[in-house]
Amino acid sequence: MADTTKKTIIVFSGDYDKVMAALIIANGAAAMGDDVTLFFTFWGLNALRKAEKIKTEKGLMQSMFGRMMPRGIKKLNMSTMNFAGMGPMMMNKVIKSGGAMTLDQLLDAAIEQGVKLVACTMTMDLLGFKKEELLDGVEYAGVAAYLAEADEANVNLFV
Amino acid sequence: MADTTKKTIIVFSGDYDKVMAALIIANGAAAMGDDVTLFFTFWGLNALRKAEKIKTEKGLMQSMFGRMMPRGIKKLNMSTMNFAGMGPMMMNKVIKSGGAMTLDQLLDAAIEQGVKLVACTMTMDLLGFKKEELLDGVEYAGVAAYLAEADEANVNLFV
Amino acid sequence: MADTTKKTIIVFSGDYDKVMAALIIANGAAAMGDDVTLFFTFWGLNALRKAEKIKTEKGLMQSMFGRMMPRGIKKLNMSTMNFAGMGPMMMNKVIKSGGAMTLDQLLDAAIEQGVKLVACTMTMDLLGFKKEELLDGVEYAGVAAYLAEADEANVNLFV
Repeated sequence: MADTTKKTIIVFSGDYDKVMAALIIANGAAAMGDDVTLFFTFWGLNALRKAEKIKTEKGLMQSMFGRMMPRGIKKLNMSTMNFAGMGPMMMNKVIKSGGAMTLDQLLDAAIEQGVKLVACTMTMDLLGFKKEELLDGVEYAGVAAYLAEADEANVNLFV
Repeated sequence: MADTTKKTIIVFSGDYDKVMAALIIANGAAAMGDDVTLFFTFWGLNALRKAEKIKTEKGLMQSMFGRMMPRGIKKLNMSTMNFAGMGPMMMNKVIKSGGAMTLDQLLDAAIEQGVKLVACTMTMDLLGFKKEELLDGVEYAGVAAYLAEADEANVNLFV
Repeated sequence: MADTTKKTIIVFSGDYDKVMAALIIANGAAAMGDDVTLFFTFWGLNALRKAEKIKTEKGLMQSMFGRMMPRGIKKLNMSTMNFAGMGPMMMNKVIKSGGAMTLDQLLDAAIEQGVKLVACTMTMDLLGFKKEELLDGVEYAGVAAYLAEADEANVNLFV
């Protein structure tokens, strides 16, 4: 049965703002002593990509997807007010001037606090992501593992 | 009280990728023996439309919505990387070459596994969908029925 | 531990249709006697803005955001089928002709039923919203308050 010490969030979206919301909740819960697992799937996987280009063997669509999709958390676009990439830059400026954490610092904080980052292997196959393209320390699992964790958690969100 | 044997997902989105995520979770949970109910509302209703044109009496806006919105799960667009419909086609190709299930096969599997598909009657009225336009076997209910089921479930997502 | 008498919804989206879905669920749950808290964050904050222009001191980006983003629940755009603002107008017409509640009436009903409306202070700072710009009666809190409420609820959604 679920108790109140565990949270899961499916990070489906790869939008700067939605990933930020997920990381703020995750960091908040971890700071309160909760176990937190973030399952990155579909476009959310972009947040886990390494910034550098990694050479891998892929099919045509997957190569194209790999080139067109943002490589890592510093490259994510906003779901609205993106202004061709100016939105996230302006957000980062406001965040820094306010002494708050930028998106990549929120991810680092989550890792430091022991938030578990899981990449969905099924959608990795679909979109053509290889493990060597994703951040070190990321774990790999499928929907069964997600459901097992969600069954132990009392708050399960889809972002 | 909630136990761990029931899940609900509100399928608000009619995007190929989000509906796929919902169906993967639903099928996974059903395979593990859970009762799963998917509540299709707003654009998610498009996933339940029959592929053929059904003649119904509608107001102007609802006729227009009916014509412009995708007719059934094979016509859904992706939330990103849609490329005027090429995205889903390419996705389907990758899925088939990998031996995985396409979106419409995931829906068929969900039905076969006894996942309950519910269409939200309130948004059907709003968007002008008639029962004869939606797949056979779909159930019809409103928000009270959703809440009653969510109260019995331990994982409730909004997609 | 969670019982079945409390619900929370994070209203991240400022889309007409998503806010409507959140308010329908909130009103439904409140009508069944549940405690309901809506946490408005990021673009969802637009739904809580007063309709009139309020003079406040803001930085450049935040002024721009303030001007470009919809001022209040009557100005929200649809996530799809928006047609440059015609979508919500047509929706409202259908709603009224069907005797149902428009989006702003749903918000009023939620307030009347005692649904708690909370504005996320962290994203208010980020987007530059001041308390005097938001509706009277709105409460202010951060992620810790959200998590405390979510721990007491049995249904927690992210919209």
